[in-house]
Amino acid sequence: MRMNHLAIVRQNVERASREATERLGLFGSATVHEAMGRVGLMQPHLRPIYSGEPVSGTAVTVLLHPGDNWMMHVAAEQIQPGDIVVAALSAECTDGFFGDLLATSFQARGARGLVIDGGVRDTRELTRMGFPVWSKAVSAKGTIKATLGSVNIPVVCAGALVHPGDAIVADDDGVVVVPAAIVPQVAKEAAAREARESEKRKLLVSGVLGLDLYKMRERLKEAGLQYI
Amino acid sequence: MRMNHLAIVRQNVERASREATERLGLFGSATVHEAMGRVGLMQPHLRPIYSGEPVSGTAVTVLLHPGDNWMMHVAAEQIQPGDIVVAALSAECTDGFFGDLLATSFQARGARGLVIDGGVRDTRELTRMGFPVWSKAVSAKGTIKATLGSVNIPVVCAGALVHPGDAIVADDDGVVVVPAAIVPQVAKEAAAREARESEKRKLLVSGVLGLDLYKMRERLKEAGLQYI
Amino acid sequence: MRMNHLAIVRQNVERASREATERLGLFGSATVHEAMGRVGLMQPHLRPIYSGEPVSGTAVTVLLHPGDNWMMHVAAEQIQPGDIVVAALSAECTDGFFGDLLATSFQARGARGLVIDGGVRDTRELTRMGFPVWSKAVSAKGTIKATLGSVNIPVVCAGALVHPGDAIVADDDGVVVVPAAIVPQVAKEAAAREARESEKRKLLVSGVLGLDLYKMRERLKEAGLQYI
Amino acid sequence: MRMNHLAIVRQNVERASREATERLGLFGSATVHEAMGRVGLMQPHLRPIYSGEPVSGTAVTVLLHPGDNWMMHVAAEQIQPGDIVVAALSAECTDGFFGDLLATSFQARGARGLVIDGGVRDTRELTRMGFPVWSKAVSAKGTIKATLGSVNIPVVCAGALVHPGDAIVADDDGVVVVPAAIVPQVAKEAAAREARESEKRKLLVSGVLGLDLYKMRERLKEAGLQYI
Amino acid sequence: MRMNHLAIVRQNVERASREATERLGLFGSATVHEAMGRVGLMQPHLRPIYSGEPVSGTAVTVLLHPGDNWMMHVAAEQIQPGDIVVAALSAECTDGFFGDLLATSFQARGARGLVIDGGVRDTRELTRMGFPVWSKAVSAKGTIKATLGSVNIPVVCAGALVHPGDAIVADDDGVVVVPAAIVPQVAKEAAAREARESEKRKLLVSGVLGLDLYKMRERLKEAGLQYI
Amino acid sequence: MRMNHLAIVRQNVERASREATERLGLFGSATVHEAMGRVGLMQPHLRPIYSGEPVSGTAVTVLLHPGDNWMMHVAAEQIQPGDIVVAALSAECTDGFFGDLLATSFQARGARGLVIDGGVRDTRELTRMGFPVWSKAVSAKGTIKATLGSVNIPVVCAGALVHPGDAIVADDDGVVVVPAAIVPQVAKEAAAREARESEKRKLLVSGVLGLDLYKMRERLKEAGLQYI
Repeated sequence: MRMNHLAIVRQNVERASREATERLGLFGSATVHEAMGRVGLMQPHLRPIYSGEPVSGTAVTVLLHPGDNWMMHVAAEQIQPGDIVVAALSAECTDGFFGDLLATSFQARGARGLVIDGGVRDTRELTRMGFPVWSKAVSAKGTIKATLGSVNIPVVCAGALVHPGDAIVADDDGVVVVPAAIVPQVAKEAAAREARESEKRKLLVSGVLGLDLYKMRERLKEAGLQYI
Repeated sequence: MRMNHLAIVRQNVERASREATERLGLFGSATVHEAMGRVGLMQPHLRPIYSGEPVSGTAVTVLLHPGDNWMMHVAAEQIQPGDIVVAALSAECTDGFFGDLLATSFQARGARGLVIDGGVRDTRELTRMGFPVWSKAVSAKGTIKATLGSVNIPVVCAGALVHPGDAIVADDDGVVVVPAAIVPQVAKEAAAREARESEKRKLLVSGVLGLDLYKMRERLKEAGLQYI
Repeated sequence: MRMNHLAIVRQNVERASREATERLGLFGSATVHEAMGRVGLMQPHLRPIYSGEPVSGTAVTVLLHPGDNWMMHVAAEQIQPGDIVVAALSAECTDGFFGDLLATSFQARGARGLVIDGGVRDTRELTRMGFPVWSKAVSAKGTIKATLGSVNIPVVCAGALVHPGDAIVADDDGVVVVPAAIVPQVAKEAAAREARESEKRKLLVSGVLGLDLYKMRERLKEAGLQYI
Repeated sequence: MRMNHLAIVRQNVERASREATERLGLFGSATVHEAMGRVGLMQPHLRPIYSGEPVSGTAVTVLLHPGDNWMMHVAAEQIQPGDIVVAALSAECTDGFFGDLLATSFQARGARGLVIDGGVRDTRELTRMGFPVWSKAVSAKGTIKATLGSVNIPVVCAGALVHPGDAIVADDDGVVVVPAAIVPQVAKEAAAREARESEKRKLLVSGVLGLDLYKMRERLKEAGLQYI
Repeated sequence: MRMNHLAIVRQNVERASREATERLGLFGSATVHEAMGRVGLMQPHLRPIYSGEPVSGTAVTVLLHPGDNWMMHVAAEQIQPGDIVVAALSAECTDGFFGDLLATSFQARGARGLVIDGGVRDTRELTRMGFPVWSKAVSAKGTIKATLGSVNIPVVCAGALVHPGDAIVADDDGVVVVPAAIVPQVAKEAAAREARESEKRKLLVSGVLGLDLYKMRERLKEAGLQYI
Repeated sequence: MRMNHLAIVRQNVERASREATERLGLFGSATVHEAMGRVGLMQPHLRPIYSGEPVSGTAVTVLLHPGDNWMMHVAAEQIQPGDIVVAALSAECTDGFFGDLLATSFQARGARGLVIDGGVRDTRELTRMGFPVWSKAVSAKGTIKATLGSVNIPVVCAGALVHPGDAIVADDDGVVVVPAAIVPQVAKEAAAREARESEKRKLLVSGVLGLDLYKMRERLKEAGLQYI
């Protein structure tokens, strides 16, 4: 059976290369997403609770049910320094599944942030603590602890498939998932892109047009663009 | 007739205890909402125009019709120091029903803020003035003054029932309504919760897990959670 | 044929009066929208990527197709100092059509900002650069360069009709379009409104009620408002 | 305390006049809503699962939590012939809280329909059974039975306040709530409106214009309408 | 001044060719939209109140304000047989601006349908009458008659620019606008497309693949598609 | 590398057991979803273009980019009798990616339906042809053929992970995905559930309450429910 539908906690998760995951964090979600071939991006309804530098880490995944955050406490124990918790929901719900007490615990365990396809609360305290969250909503609505979900199973969060141990890169532009096996390769490609963009930026600042820089004029003419 | 459907202004509204309402403002919407038994919260589409400390006050209610803010001027006269105006709409509309001129008037009367299930404008000036607003939208679209509504009748605002004189607590996490009669009791319960949370926070910072702090391990096992 | 459906770039666009367009920028979207007779406003789903003073400029228009930003490069060449680029889409799409490289180019050409009924990325860099954008979404999702659109044709952006050369006024409250021919007249009317509002503000600060200032009491009574 | 926040079931609910509630069912939601003075309407996101004649009944109210339909079973016992169950949610959720088994039970108790600010499933079977439902969503997602809510307390459903025993009128145009005490009065006013509309319809069919029938020409001229 | 911002009614509107407009109605919105070069389509949130054959007609345009349908009565007088009324709103609003009485009047004047970027009511009666409507919402909420708008000015409806007299084609797939001047040309191109599609349909039914019919295999290979 | 990011077409896909997939089709999405342990459901924004009996089949997956349906033609060739095509998008888009010509081709290849997290057109013709589609939108907006995607790779469609060859069950309540390996086991469990429900239905029709049938009274009392 490909996906275990029982309520389980997988404890020994192989994380993506720590060093390569750190490097990914230097580039931001847009560059990493391009470096992967324009896949792996979560939907843009996920927004950061405060603006900041890109954050990267390895995924601890959680599957929650609407109105219930019990498994967040189970997930806390699975956190290792450098992890980012990724919480998916079995149905759409904007409740506040996470607040400053859980954040205190996650931070004490070494978590670098939370990505949740649901709501979050205590955003002012989370900002003060410097604990970044990407969420679908902000809501003071609390949750109960009655239904089991799972920790460290593959989940679909905001339209993206996340396996435990995958690298997560999140910033003001969104959240991208990089499968653990290709993290070094993507970090390398991202660095190459960044270098190329740096060159282009200098030329564009000087007034060179993208039309010339990217040699688009001929292709546009062939495609039939008319200047009048 | 339970709800008077005429266009009326109720002038003598008994407000919730001023002192207890002030105390509620120390806790924020999430704690107050929990202290009430997880009810009374407005829907999370209401967002503050700027981030800040929790605000509390007693409700002056207004029922508006789409595209018409005439009754806001009528409401201004009913404001007493310490009030928060709560504006409900008879149908969904994102127009800017409120701007800096009305805010100047509301502030002069002693209002502490506005909660509106519609749009607001002049948000930059409102921020400079320190007049907080929780709204569904920001829109430069102005309104007319042609249709009567009512002031200080019970209204449903963003999914929550508000009676004039009820206590309102609003912050970055949302807006919660506390019926006037139970404000002292809720303030007491909120204080107790806050004290308990403070204790927990210390333990969580030190690395104690919620699983142990809340004694969840046994219950999780009984519920069938499997560690693999 | 009223609207040319070919892929065209109109090069000689008559802009609205530069001087009057500058003056419009002093008032902000709400005042300008009122001064025009409450028309010309884009829908409130367009939001600024950062808060700031009102910006005004003359429109360079672009029609894009979903997932394709090729024409943005074509538009760059048509920018003159003082322009604002207005990008409409042929279908709803939240992809990030614009980032810091294009912004560098636009800024080098003298553009004052971008209004786009789609997504934008690199928002942190854009904020650092001081290049304001009003968009429907923020998304790290990149686009391709495969389909022709048009530059400087009339477009419908976020519900508003924009002709190339029209004046655009954008701020925290939204984006308003002023047809080029009436820019001086609207600027004059906006100045008159601003002067009138300034007078009212002083009275309202002193505690005078809008009910008296605007002489509403009689009309409210006639309309049937009851005080109880 | 105005609203009891415990988990309670109120068993002795005084229903609106059966006879007057039946009469309301002849008119439909639009006419009843107008007859009440244009209040009492639920938000238009509630849609019928199939098209049909207007249905009327007296409200049995239920407050549910996201993902949990336990209280629906408790509500079933409180149903009397001629009732309509009105289910409100403490937070937004599209799960399928209701399906053909519950409908079988509700129908056996004499219920005439369900209004729910959440999701429903087995819509094909419900259509076959002739059990009408107005819901926010259709979803195969099932729910659990773990959290208490309440039955027959005042609830806010889709933006409207509903007390147990109120009359509900629902049809293809939406759902309207009539406070129990004014049902006879509203039924009378609705009948009067219907009679007046019948007269108007005949004239309009014959080609008489509303401009003349409602004597609008003078008012339009005074308001400044220009014919060119 | 390009767009007259006063409250006006233009009475002498030149309609698109009646004969060519009729022919457009044979093809449906998708074919006509393609024949125009993939422009002119309204946004897909407009939905028909009942399923049916494509309808075509010439536009009588109306600009309404939120919650106010006064101008619909003014528009009725401007209807000529074969017209379709296109109602735009100055701000988003889901109120029911149109019901069976207005429909009776419109039908008596020869209107073929209504397209409205707002709400409609009495949908069951409208279906019985055979009066098709494309709307953004269905709502029993009525409107007032207090604010002037305009009739037969250019409007933006659901994202599309409509001039009075333009041809409208509407069916289950949506609503498309054809500028009056190019209606004969678009009708001709649509007929040609239809003929080509008819040929293709026969081949596809017989099992021929689009890959071969459209000779795509070479282009896919060049673009880099890999079969594994 | 877990997910191949190139543009590929996997040709030899092992399908779920044909016989067990057929049996799943007897139960409908709600029962199958429950039988799987309440997972595997697509989001409820997917709606059928017409109402009908449950359909089941094995998945041919396609990954499309916004505004581009080129890969639908590539997918056609991979269809085997009994398949259902599942189309995911790399970003949100409501364009009409599929119409009656493609449906003719799919049907000729033996496809039983289409599930697409985007738009569809020609819905009237599709209904006449008896080709069921579950989509996010209906739109006459056509697409281009310029960008490669992939066929028969794992995709996330409307929040659910689908591997090529998985079983799909779709009906009026939604769409559920069953991993190929567990189809026989889920079909068996679904049959068992159906049998149990049939028993319950008889009892509920006779007036037995769920409270007694499911023996809930004791648990409700323990949980603290109060009858007043």
